[in-house]
Amino acid sequence: MAQIIESIPNISNGRDKDVIEACVDQIRTTPGCTLLDYSSDESHNRSVITYIGNAEAVEEASVKLVKKAAELIDLNHHTGEHPRMGAVDVMPFLPIKDCTTEDCIELSKKVGKRIADEAGVPVFLYEQSATRPERQNLVTIRKGQFEGMAEKVQQPDWEPDFGGRRIHPTAGVMAVGARPPLVAFNLYLDTDDVQIAKNIAKIIREKDGGFKCVKSMGFEIEDEATGKKYAQVSCNMTNYQQTPLYRVVETVKFEAAKYGARILKCEIVGLVPMKALTDCAEYYIQLTDFDFEKQVLENHII
Amino acid sequence: MAQIIESIPNISNGRDKDVIEACVDQIRTTPGCTLLDYSSDESHNRSVITYIGNAEAVEEASVKLVKKAAELIDLNHHTGEHPRMGAVDVMPFLPIKDCTTEDCIELSKKVGKRIADEAGVPVFLYEQSATRPERQNLVTIRKGQFEGMAEKVQQPDWEPDFGGRRIHPTAGVMAVGARPPLVAFNLYLDTDDVQIAKNIAKIIREKDGGFKCVKSMGFEIEDEATGKKYAQVSCNMTNYQQTPLYRVVETVKFEAAKYGARILKCEIVGLVPMKALTDCAEYYIQLTDFDFEKQVLENHII
Repeated sequence: MAQIIESIPNISNGRDKDVIEACVDQIRTTPGCTLLDYSSDESHNRSVITYIGNAEAVEEASVKLVKKAAELIDLNHHTGEHPRMGAVDVMPFLPIKDCTTEDCIELSKKVGKRIADEAGVPVFLYEQSATRPERQNLVTIRKGQFEGMAEKVQQPDWEPDFGGRRIHPTAGVMAVGARPPLVAFNLYLDTDDVQIAKNIAKIIREKDGGFKCVKSMGFEIEDEATGKKYAQVSCNMTNYQQTPLYRVVETVKFEAAKYGARILKCEIVGLVPMKALTDCAEYYIQLTDFDFEKQVLENHII
Repeated sequence: MAQIIESIPNISNGRDKDVIEACVDQIRTTPGCTLLDYSSDESHNRSVITYIGNAEAVEEASVKLVKKAAELIDLNHHTGEHPRMGAVDVMPFLPIKDCTTEDCIELSKKVGKRIADEAGVPVFLYEQSATRPERQNLVTIRKGQFEGMAEKVQQPDWEPDFGGRRIHPTAGVMAVGARPPLVAFNLYLDTDDVQIAKNIAKIIREKDGGFKCVKSMGFEIEDEATGKKYAQVSCNMTNYQQTPLYRVVETVKFEAAKYGARILKCEIVGLVPMKALTDCAEYYIQLTDFDFEKQVLENHII
């Protein structure tokens, strides 16, 4: 069985097809690396690229990507709705198969050092790779954005982990780090009362005393086809092994019942590792002695 | 994404390690073929070998396996509890990934013809490859076993599909065919009254008017550690896409409730394709618009 690490970097260009393709080509042309997906958001002026491979392949592809992006993207002329601080803004590494968080942390440090050395872009280690608690959160690191970064890195607490206190003149700085696979999970209620979704979101999210590794908010969603409105509990499950999806579903169910509301449907946005779903199956069909690694056929194929 | 077909042939030797290893080696040495598992049962004097690959690789490995088994296994000197008619008794092909039932039927005919031509073993096409309704069921084909087969193939209705009416003198005849992946699924009730399990098994199995592609029986199971007894509904789900596992779970739940009984736990014996489990997750967490192929990460890796 081969090791699989996933990387999902965000690059600061979502409008120029030539630039985006040239960046994505760095992944395509790296042996052992598989491009899973890439998509661009014009208003954000930002693209997300998803690829997988073993540590060596992902290291190679990631360094190549940053070099190319630093060559082609000039943050001095970048506009867009989404906050950003670098040509490649953020580069997470996720353990998918036969590797640990520690492997991804090690990879992030290797890649971070090479990016600083070879592309001249200073790197902050973030999330599980963070060297200080306040660097775990990307938002905290990115505060001030590209325009404020030259000054920020001079502050005592904000020397980058690699590359020193001088930002790249056009490519800025970036964040690299290990993080668990994230599942974007939305639950629709059979009510248009958004306050119900907001109340439930507050109950389940870690920040307000709910489940660990759950971020959630309540939204009002309008069905484009019918014009009907629904209250939605929108979740980011940052560690589905810590807090499995079914626990959120069952909790939303019984909390919604207080208001006479029920779950209408749920959705997963984008990719989900199969284990996030098979864990739900194990719970609901009471597979108490199930051996995921040995018994799921696909684990022998990957 | 590569095509994956699984084969799970049963060979008529479960006692002689040299013979078994020589047969398994035919799989190991076929490029593009991956041996997933093999296990032997001494009292049955029978071994099960599990391997996967694309059609070409599985064809090659399967023909090689039959040649080797026909060379080493003599049914004239075979004893064992399990009924058998050939050195390789049965060879099913299961569509796992990027292939259809039709692909597996085609493969079974190709392999069947080659086995007859190259190993001299006559072949009955069975299950979904059957050329007559009465040949769908392996038990019907195998009736009479090796000892009665020379005479059986002379009967008007029992000419093998390939190889003519003369059985191989030592390797007999065999069955080759396409079949859907099967999930062995057991549900334990919190009662020792086996009659409850028998009643429920009768309700859910296809034979008695229950769900299509479900075979089930009621058993009394004794926990070896505690000596406690449980009624068990034991199921073979021969097509988990036709009848998903959750449908059996929910039906057993409400039928058991009639007796004041509940499901204590469930178990899957052996391998299970991830889709059999993710389908359950989709049901229970109400993922109404989920795209299994696109959204499950592992589908992009296999």
